[in-house]
Amino acid sequence: MARSNMHAILRLEINKQLITFGEIATCISNSSGDMVAIDVIKEGQEMTVRDITIRVGNEMEQEKIVNSINALNGVSVKHVSDRTFLVHLGGKIEIKSKISIDNREQLSQVYTPEVARVSQAIDKNPLLAYNLTIKNNAVAVISDGTAVLGLGKIKPEAAMPVMEGKAMLFKQFANINAYPLCLNTTDTEEIIMIIKALSPTFGGINLEDIASPQCFEIEDRLKKELDIPVFHDDQHGTAIVVLAGIFNALKITKKNIEDCKIVVCGIGAAGIAITKMLLNAGAKNVVGVDRNGAINRDETYENKMWDWYSNNTNPTNEQGPLSSVIENADIFIGVSAAGILKVEDVKKMADQAIVFALANPNPEISPEDASPYVKIMATGRSDYPNQVNNVLCFPGIFRGVLDCRASTINEEMKLAAAKAIASTIGDDELNEDYIIPGVFNDQVVPKIKEAVIKAAHETGVAKKI
Amino acid sequence: MARSNMHAILRLEINKQLITFGEIATCISNSSGDMVAIDVIKEGQEMTVRDITIRVGNEMEQEKIVNSINALNGVSVKHVSDRTFLVHLGGKIEIKSKISIDNREQLSQVYTPEVARVSQAIDKNPLLAYNLTIKNNAVAVISDGTAVLGLGKIKPEAAMPVMEGKAMLFKQFANINAYPLCLNTTDTEEIIMIIKALSPTFGGINLEDIASPQCFEIEDRLKKELDIPVFHDDQHGTAIVVLAGIFNALKITKKNIEDCKIVVCGIGAAGIAITKMLLNAGAKNVVGVDRNGAINRDETYENKMWDWYSNNTNPTNEQGPLSSVIENADIFIGVSAAGILKVEDVKKMADQAIVFALANPNPEISPEDASPYVKIMATGRSDYPNQVNNVLCFPGIFRGVLDCRASTINEEMKLAAAKAIASTIGDDELNEDYIIPGVFNDQVVPKIKEAVIKAAHETGVAKKI
Repeated sequence: MARSNMHAILRLEINKQLITFGEIATCISNSSGDMVAIDVIKEGQEMTVRDITIRVGNEMEQEKIVNSINALNGVSVKHVSDRTFLVHLGGKIEIKSKISIDNREQLSQVYTPEVARVSQAIDKNPLLAYNLTIKNNAVAVISDGTAVLGLGKIKPEAAMPVMEGKAMLFKQFANINAYPLCLNTTDTEEIIMIIKALSPTFGGINLEDIASPQCFEIEDRLKKELDIPVFHDDQHGTAIVVLAGIFNALKITKKNIEDCKIVVCGIGAAGIAITKMLLNAGAKNVVGVDRNGAINRDETYENKMWDWYSNNTNPTNEQGPLSSVIENADIFIGVSAAGILKVEDVKKMADQAIVFALANPNPEISPEDASPYVKIMATGRSDYPNQVNNVLCFPGIFRGVLDCRASTINEEMKLAAAKAIASTIGDDELNEDYIIPGVFNDQVVPKIKEAVIKAAHETGVAKKI
Repeated sequence: MARSNMHAILRLEINKQLITFGEIATCISNSSGDMVAIDVIKEGQEMTVRDITIRVGNEMEQEKIVNSINALNGVSVKHVSDRTFLVHLGGKIEIKSKISIDNREQLSQVYTPEVARVSQAIDKNPLLAYNLTIKNNAVAVISDGTAVLGLGKIKPEAAMPVMEGKAMLFKQFANINAYPLCLNTTDTEEIIMIIKALSPTFGGINLEDIASPQCFEIEDRLKKELDIPVFHDDQHGTAIVVLAGIFNALKITKKNIEDCKIVVCGIGAAGIAITKMLLNAGAKNVVGVDRNGAINRDETYENKMWDWYSNNTNPTNEQGPLSSVIENADIFIGVSAAGILKVEDVKKMADQAIVFALANPNPEISPEDASPYVKIMATGRSDYPNQVNNVLCFPGIFRGVLDCRASTINEEMKLAAAKAIASTIGDDELNEDYIIPGVFNDQVVPKIKEAVIKAAHETGVAKKI
């Protein structure tokens, strides 16, 4: 399943007397490269230098193309740049002053000596920080680099491009100023202490790509000990978008969540958050499956969260592997690994089966394999319908909590956000291939924001009246 | 010594049949308010609402003006806004994306899935973080709020406007992306741990407004344990600008630093840093004075830094109060408190005395009182000649260290920066009232940058060739 988002820019030195550009283009096409742009860098009598942007499936294909070109007489590849790397040069975000300082008077207003009066006012009444500093629209995107995308544990420096990307999305979709902070520690207590110490500066904390089970302790403790909202996006962002999709899928299949058997595969951070939201939304029969089969009450678990899981799900105490508990399931939600769900498993599901195969980049079962046997299919990928993408959630939910100065993000607010996302698709538009809105749908952020603010007020956690 | 930088905006409701605007203006002038702008907010048949911007000396004067206006018949002050507070609304900085995300392809380049290749590349070679993340141009401005301006210890939220102002100056003067972080802890070990954990994200650390003696331990430890430069601006920024001024002052008085008796008054963070730089610049006879008089070798000091001070200064082991050690001093440098230096003291100084009275907002001696007896006078204030202002130093020094990826800021680099600042004033311009360039002099940053890079290469701490 090759993806075609990768671009390379090849700088070619061409001897026009030995080869034509058409011959080179043919060679690129024959090596399955898709030429999307040509820039002339230097034009001489005999030699010409051109930058050719090509779309390729993966790095191996790119190498194949470079080798094919080099094998031609009269042309050589002088340099290969990767467009993705080029957009990362120097980082992707910057700081901007809201006002320019052009004279002494402005300088003394924004800095010493006049700023001292503003500091004194906040010192007397710290709530004024929401009015007179960046706090009210500032979110920290914090990671320790222990569970980054599909890469697992990487160095904190290496997690930065992901967090910078997230900061861009915060800005673009919700006009929130997010700053990425990647920590050079993986110690739970240290991370908690650091984030507590940083909290005066921020209006909210977005935890990102922190490994399970540490992420639970870190988030739980911070929620208790801080008065600003703390949100582990890998858990709750995913869960909210999944629930949004499930709500719309159930509308199409005309089933009630209370009556559905739901199998959740992969009981890590996301799987547990999804399960909690399902239960809060009314689900009665959720069965969790991990490497050793269904999580049940005849086993004892060292993992505290699995212990909780066994006592709060699986009402009939089902046991055995996925291939057995999948029988008669109405809904499968996978946040596990590629290829875990087999065609034979899907065949055993109830009528009008709903399959969310969210493993990235390759799902638990491919849509091609599953579609003959399921009613509705969702994945984490943008090249299939119904993409579960966290970008649908975090900008809107933080816009909402910042605007009403919520002290926390509670279950009611998360459920409201999921319903808001689902509601962006009208009954006239809703169909099997459109249960989740696209990431550029400009209704999503305002609808979530409104719903979150309402739920925050109803549950008494909004500090701004 | 009233300053006239404070502005207030008064919203007036005026009954045009009872009073003319001229009468109101006269009343403001009579109360020594200076009207600088008028905005008509609402114009009715009988009533009119106007915003009047006035320049006032201080808050007491502002209150007096408001009371005088309210005492008039036919006009009332509905609201008073303060222009300094208005520029702080919502904070002074924001985050900006360098590129906009308008379609799925761009989204997948800056975020998942394509960003994973960038993360993998940095994970293999962490030095690539300097190319592919914001690190190379990112500075953290970090304070614990324990020694803010003249305010002393204030809440971390209250320190934010100062740090945001600093971030604006970093951007405006040196195009550096600085992010303000105010910590909710004053524990030395915690602060050290937090900054070490944050270091993957930043190319440099600017410590700010941290109380003495904690600031010494924090900076020393971080310098040893981190491979990015750490700079406590209150110490070294001040010291560098003072030295720049001293170099030019000595040019005018035609004295050598080696031959000068220099009295430093106020042996805290700034006083110690100034002394160290003086010694590195060749000074032989520096005498430090604090509350109990000259720091000397017959006393024992609990404060570790004073112990160091007594062993490295005061060659003739002078003792006694400022009024006695000031005798025959060529240079006085005060970083202490208002009014400490008396006219009688200045009279005892050597010929062509140089006085740097840097206490803020009110100096150790006023220029009016001192000038009959000194050759050259400098203060920390913008309303007198020769202002010692840290803004002259930190943008250029960080521009230099970021550009050459210096691992530290050593004594040679600081001395080079001081000489660079001094060199921005040509021999033809140099005079008693112009020994330090103005903060908007656009030669300062490039000259410091160049000198700092050169010194970093010469001392082998530049990581970028």
